[in-house]
Amino acid sequence: MAVAPILSDKAAGAEALAVFDDIRAKRNTDYVNNFWRALAADPVLLRATWERLQVVMGPGHLDPLVKEMIYVAVSVTNNCSYCIHSHTAAARAKGMTDAQHGELMAVIAMAAQTNALATALQVPVDDRFMVSAQAPDAAPA
Amino acid sequence: MAVAPILSDKAAGAEALAVFDDIRAKRNTDYVNNFWRALAADPVLLRATWERLQVVMGPGHLDPLVKEMIYVAVSVTNNCSYCIHSHTAAARAKGMTDAQHGELMAVIAMAAQTNALATALQVPVDDRFMVSAQAPDAAPA
Amino acid sequence: MAVAPILSDKAAGAEALAVFDDIRAKRNTDYVNNFWRALAADPVLLRATWERLQVVMGPGHLDPLVKEMIYVAVSVTNNCSYCIHSHTAAARAKGMTDAQHGELMAVIAMAAQTNALATALQVPVDDRFMVSAQAPDAAPA
Amino acid sequence: MAVAPILSDKAAGAEALAVFDDIRAKRNTDYVNNFWRALAADPVLLRATWERLQVVMGPGHLDPLVKEMIYVAVSVTNNCSYCIHSHTAAARAKGMTDAQHGELMAVIAMAAQTNALATALQVPVDDRFMVSAQAPDAAPA
Amino acid sequence: MAVAPILSDKAAGAEALAVFDDIRAKRNTDYVNNFWRALAADPVLLRATWERLQVVMGPGHLDPLVKEMIYVAVSVTNNCSYCIHSHTAAARAKGMTDAQHGELMAVIAMAAQTNALATALQVPVDDRFMVSAQAPDAAPA
Amino acid sequence: MAVAPILSDKAAGAEALAVFDDIRAKRNTDYVNNFWRALAADPVLLRATWERLQVVMGPGHLDPLVKEMIYVAVSVTNNCSYCIHSHTAAARAKGMTDAQHGELMAVIAMAAQTNALATALQVPVDDRFMVSAQAPDAAPA
Repeated sequence: MAVAPILSDKAAGAEALAVFDDIRAKRNTDYVNNFWRALAADPVLLRATWERLQVVMGPGHLDPLVKEMIYVAVSVTNNCSYCIHSHTAAARAKGMTDAQHGELMAVIAMAAQTNALATALQVPVDDRFMVSAQAPDAAPA
Repeated sequence: MAVAPILSDKAAGAEALAVFDDIRAKRNTDYVNNFWRALAADPVLLRATWERLQVVMGPGHLDPLVKEMIYVAVSVTNNCSYCIHSHTAAARAKGMTDAQHGELMAVIAMAAQTNALATALQVPVDDRFMVSAQAPDAAPA
Repeated sequence: MAVAPILSDKAAGAEALAVFDDIRAKRNTDYVNNFWRALAADPVLLRATWERLQVVMGPGHLDPLVKEMIYVAVSVTNNCSYCIHSHTAAARAKGMTDAQHGELMAVIAMAAQTNALATALQVPVDDRFMVSAQAPDAAPA
Repeated sequence: MAVAPILSDKAAGAEALAVFDDIRAKRNTDYVNNFWRALAADPVLLRATWERLQVVMGPGHLDPLVKEMIYVAVSVTNNCSYCIHSHTAAARAKGMTDAQHGELMAVIAMAAQTNALATALQVPVDDRFMVSAQAPDAAPA
Repeated sequence: MAVAPILSDKAAGAEALAVFDDIRAKRNTDYVNNFWRALAADPVLLRATWERLQVVMGPGHLDPLVKEMIYVAVSVTNNCSYCIHSHTAAARAKGMTDAQHGELMAVIAMAAQTNALATALQVPVDDRFMVSAQAPDAAPA
Repeated sequence: MAVAPILSDKAAGAEALAVFDDIRAKRNTDYVNNFWRALAADPVLLRATWERLQVVMGPGHLDPLVKEMIYVAVSVTNNCSYCIHSHTAAARAKGMTDAQHGELMAVIAMAAQTNALATALQVPVDDRFMVSAQAPDAAPA
């Protein structure tokens, strides 16, 4: 059930191994999960993905658990089985309770339902929900 | 750009109008947005959707703003233009800052990207991310 | 391959068990399928989903088999493996023949194909396919 | 809002025009809708699509209106605005009542909702919903 | 994990077997893959799909390997596990190198990411990207 | 039809303007399209997206036009109207002929169709299409 090998430390090249080591150090664990091992065949893509992930999921204006729940919501809607598993686990590791998981499920299901209805009926967007695309002082230079 | 009429108060039937009035009362506004007016042709579906929405988005274990951002994330991934507009507006009304919106965008884009990679490579799920489907004491009765 | 336990009758709480019993009674079978057992960790979500499902799939203006085939079409397009399996089985239980299944496949595949073409070419909607969003007598009150 | 021209009869080539004429004859109308006019730049693709559509949507084991509603269900889930408009109009032309449209909406929304839940929880498929992939007598030759 | 049997040569009917034989002859192999065996229950759908596939993927204006990579890109985005596996294998058989596969992954991931951003922000299309829907000389006849 | 303003040069901050200038220089044009102007409210996201795009779409092992066509294929499947318009225009600017565009359409539509069929039938992946997830010498260190 894979289209690329899941590279062990031994099978990975030096550049990929350096990323594995960085993952271990930053996450304070010896375990490097399959996603990174599958990307290791292309060390440039591996590094770019890992570095961007740290920036996006790092400290900022949203709580780390909130970010994980948003990640789960996108992964469910995109139907990415791997990502649903890994980010639900990550959300739990960051403190998501069963009750919060239940509400996350309920919001995702509600949105899926009203998304379908609004699309099926092709409801026109209310003027008040739109940002005027260009402020008067914002004509392209 | 619609496949069903957007019913005015005058055009809506008594059952639909009762839901409109409940929306006005609960949201403390005179404005009933197009989504509800498009559903008004089927008052039973209208009421069921409105009542469930209140339960799901009401007070609970997740912050109301967090629920709105999860709603936006699903709506973006489902590509529901109406819902992206209405729930981004709702998130702003609940206090989402520009910086938070920027991070929401970044998490959604990051998830879209790694979802695509995990799917493209068909990465097998790590054992540690799975919940054993059935606890020893949980054999179906 | 799960992110939540599939609760046995023994592991389920009293509220969830009451829903299981209702499923058994209404469906006239002892078997409660995994979908409901996975939802049982959140008995409120479990009940809301089960009750709404009965209303939607119950007697009405569309034939029960037609409803199941529509359910399959949505599940295929959303790529929900569980739902494709369960609702294809349900459609067969409601009398779907092999020939009807073949036509269902053909219509789903045809729609997928023309959906892709219309989207790829961004074909503008013909005026005659649109419902005027608002009837003259339907200006919002 | 197009990435290809919508060809008039005059702008279309002879091969495309022959397909337009066949559409007019089979549908007993002078009107050729934009989808076909957008495909007319590639007459081979135009003809292949039109001929396959007639086979799939023609008389068979499912009622023509049922086929249109399945088409709408797929188009909604794929979020194809053009197709939602054209096939909802086609379903109405084939006799879909407002009550049937309401139920179609409700089934689509219900499926979207349970699809999301089954995917979010990664519910394993019950054995009884699977067809054994290969019958004992069906080992590949 | 199937909703239809995977028919062996013995279990397939004469019409399906004729298509299997054509697949073997055209592909110069004895192996008929599961996709065709799953379609064999509906020989008309089987033949229509096989014949159209040959036209679309046959010699033309795009390189056969390019066509396979486009096929993979669509299959990934549609999350079709079967198709990702079969068309990645086909692309490799047509000469796709590891470096090309890496770039294919990167482009798919980049597109997924910017698709999400453009959708999330509902960016209006620049005039210069649109083809005027109708040339002056192209008014419908 | 936007949820964020499309910033003019005047309205954009210094960091965003620096990215606009880089876009102008690299693309050898004065025109900065709406996608970048919509991202300009978050200059960090703007720069990260622009820099990654250059790496991914720059010279490598796939032809630039091939990359654009893959981008179009993903954008169509994700139904991103903005991206379909902008990348179809980009593909044309890189030399895509009408005949190549027609074949791109045909491959996308074919893939959409067989994706739907493989998913609808839940066809199990043939062993020969799978890469053994782990080579004998590749046990995790």
